[in-house]
Amino acid sequence: MKPDLIQTVRTHTPLIHCITNYVTVNDVANILLACGASPIMADDAQEVEEITALCDGLVLNIGTLNSRTIDSMLLAGKRANALGHTVVLDPVGVGASRLRTETAKKLLQQVQFSVIRGNISEISTLCGIDSHTQGVDAAPADAVTEETLEKAIAFAKQFSAQTGAVIAITGAIDIVADSETAYIIRNGHAIMSKVTGTGCMLTAVVAAYCQANPEVLTQAAAAAVAAMGLCGELAYERMQRTPLAGTSSFRTFLIDAISRIDDETLREGIKIEVR
Amino acid sequence: MKPDLIQTVRTHTPLIHCITNYVTVNDVANILLACGASPIMADDAQEVEEITALCDGLVLNIGTLNSRTIDSMLLAGKRANALGHTVVLDPVGVGASRLRTETAKKLLQQVQFSVIRGNISEISTLCGIDSHTQGVDAAPADAVTEETLEKAIAFAKQFSAQTGAVIAITGAIDIVADSETAYIIRNGHAIMSKVTGTGCMLTAVVAAYCQANPEVLTQAAAAAVAAMGLCGELAYERMQRTPLAGTSSFRTFLIDAISRIDDETLREGIKIEVR
Amino acid sequence: MKPDLIQTVRTHTPLIHCITNYVTVNDVANILLACGASPIMADDAQEVEEITALCDGLVLNIGTLNSRTIDSMLLAGKRANALGHTVVLDPVGVGASRLRTETAKKLLQQVQFSVIRGNISEISTLCGIDSHTQGVDAAPADAVTEETLEKAIAFAKQFSAQTGAVIAITGAIDIVADSETAYIIRNGHAIMSKVTGTGCMLTAVVAAYCQANPEVLTQAAAAAVAAMGLCGELAYERMQRTPLAGTSSFRTFLIDAISRIDDETLREGIKIEVR
Repeated sequence: MKPDLIQTVRTHTPLIHCITNYVTVNDVANILLACGASPIMADDAQEVEEITALCDGLVLNIGTLNSRTIDSMLLAGKRANALGHTVVLDPVGVGASRLRTETAKKLLQQVQFSVIRGNISEISTLCGIDSHTQGVDAAPADAVTEETLEKAIAFAKQFSAQTGAVIAITGAIDIVADSETAYIIRNGHAIMSKVTGTGCMLTAVVAAYCQANPEVLTQAAAAAVAAMGLCGELAYERMQRTPLAGTSSFRTFLIDAISRIDDETLREGIKIEVR
Repeated sequence: MKPDLIQTVRTHTPLIHCITNYVTVNDVANILLACGASPIMADDAQEVEEITALCDGLVLNIGTLNSRTIDSMLLAGKRANALGHTVVLDPVGVGASRLRTETAKKLLQQVQFSVIRGNISEISTLCGIDSHTQGVDAAPADAVTEETLEKAIAFAKQFSAQTGAVIAITGAIDIVADSETAYIIRNGHAIMSKVTGTGCMLTAVVAAYCQANPEVLTQAAAAAVAAMGLCGELAYERMQRTPLAGTSSFRTFLIDAISRIDDETLREGIKIEVR
Repeated sequence: MKPDLIQTVRTHTPLIHCITNYVTVNDVANILLACGASPIMADDAQEVEEITALCDGLVLNIGTLNSRTIDSMLLAGKRANALGHTVVLDPVGVGASRLRTETAKKLLQQVQFSVIRGNISEISTLCGIDSHTQGVDAAPADAVTEETLEKAIAFAKQFSAQTGAVIAITGAIDIVADSETAYIIRNGHAIMSKVTGTGCMLTAVVAAYCQANPEVLTQAAAAAVAAMGLCGELAYERMQRTPLAGTSSFRTFLIDAISRIDDETLREGIKIEVR
């Protein structure tokens, strides 16, 4: 792992343009600031190309899609591609409706993504494989387990070859893969699914880490996934030590941890293997 | 009170579709997770019917209404009715504008609600009774007090008979009534009105509790109202013991408390009577 | 400084209508409640005139502008003017796109603002002066320093004379000026820029303080700016004393501090001079 990957984000302060859902947008903005980046949210078709041109990276998140913002996503994505920016897709709930599925496909066809991050149900749907999408969470039947891990790794590598994007499949076990190398990450805590937006936030952190460390793109995405998982562990420990704390305190502690994490902490806490 | 009402929510994890305002949407999602349910927010007319079909319950909240989402609410409401889902209405600020009043009426005409939750000004306006709507808070002149309680109970029962929905009128004293039975709840703390979204959050919790306990619908709505009030009391106590804490800490403590509450805590802290 | 300026907000509970961005809207609502005011968010052209007529003040924030809400801002602004309400503009990111710049100009032409609050890049752009807008943060080259302070004060006074609005330029050093008097405020902490929405929240607090104290408009705006800065300092101190706290805890502590601050605390902590 590049030794100063996190520090580089804090030094470069990449400006990340997000077209994202209104449920978790505030958390996404705050976690970008916490990890050392700077957010700008803008979704009107009349301005997204100009806004994205001022930025270094772009996040497209289809969480609360509407007809107005779909065009904006396509415009911003193409412009960001033309400028060589890091572009990250979060296909929230793809498969849950035709609108999401068709929009995700349109995005895949017209925009070249640097990284695509989702749960296994979402990534499988994207790839056209039959999956069991249930709202915005991964279906239990799809979960990546030790038993299905090898198959999931092969799938991630193949989908990366097909799309040219680093594929990040997150869940109890995370896989971050390009066509040749897969990082398997075992950080994180189950309570992260009891707070809305941990996926959306992670996607934004991936964009920031990748934009600041483009020469090691897959590694940067893996570091973001591991950092988020490790911060989830640290936040859970802090929650356990705080009397009466519950899931809302956990959310605060998670963003706090992202704002404090450095390369050394990540190096000590990361549970990663390469396959 | 059904003894395992809260546990049932945690066991069943009802998936609740929310078409809600963008002010408090994040809190609504987080409190649904905190109480054991799972949220999905989607408001585009092109997908709301499909999304609601994947879910178990639906919340319609008119807090930041716009022409685009009104159609979505009608479409989702009718589909949820056809599927027999729990459908809950939060008529935020009805009476404050013709748009809200007409939309609320349209919703009442075209959608059968399981529960309608609002403050006394909102519920009175819904019923066509002259009220003193002042923005999104109840007008002081409308407040339910010990003096006006009997009248308010009779009104709630009658409005329930008229709409076929359980009516939850919340304020300093809460009333949850069907056409025959009214629960009077005296939990809660005044500081809850110093945080935005306690009403919206409560509506979502009502949907989750009712969806998981449909055989005792009125009781489940009453339990949700009481649980929220009790958690407000617990959060206030915790705030008092936390040096320098203010309203934002209170908000965190409130959601924390909802994430921790169980049936035994509710049984011990509930202040409820039946009339 | 008027001795009961903050208390007056808590006594009068001004109702503030906000047409604001969806990134920080929840924080804006919560800080209005925290400072003693009451928020209502509504942005549909069909209702904004009625809603604003129920209120005492109006905030227009162009943070996530879209074609739908631009008309709403113009309608609400004109109506609020006709009713003599306090109207505050936050020109978030003006200069970052033609849409923002043209909308801000349209607003300046058609609406009379009581106060305009932004960073130096935004206010300079508004005034037509060449600036270096970089997303939503002030460009380093524009920063108000001790060296450029005199020039910035003169600019603020002149822009106030031109617009008839109190001008609040916030950054490391804050300037609040009408055409004759400028308040220079040195409260605040750099960490405030590591949380999204401190600017948006401040704008809302300015609206509340000014609406409750219209007879000392410039002073009220200066008090709001100083109170926010002082609360930033207090929140930072609390964060330093809280093990493992980071930027998300800071955000909670900031709103907590606003909910607790009184006139005496402000009087003791304010760092203000008049020029």
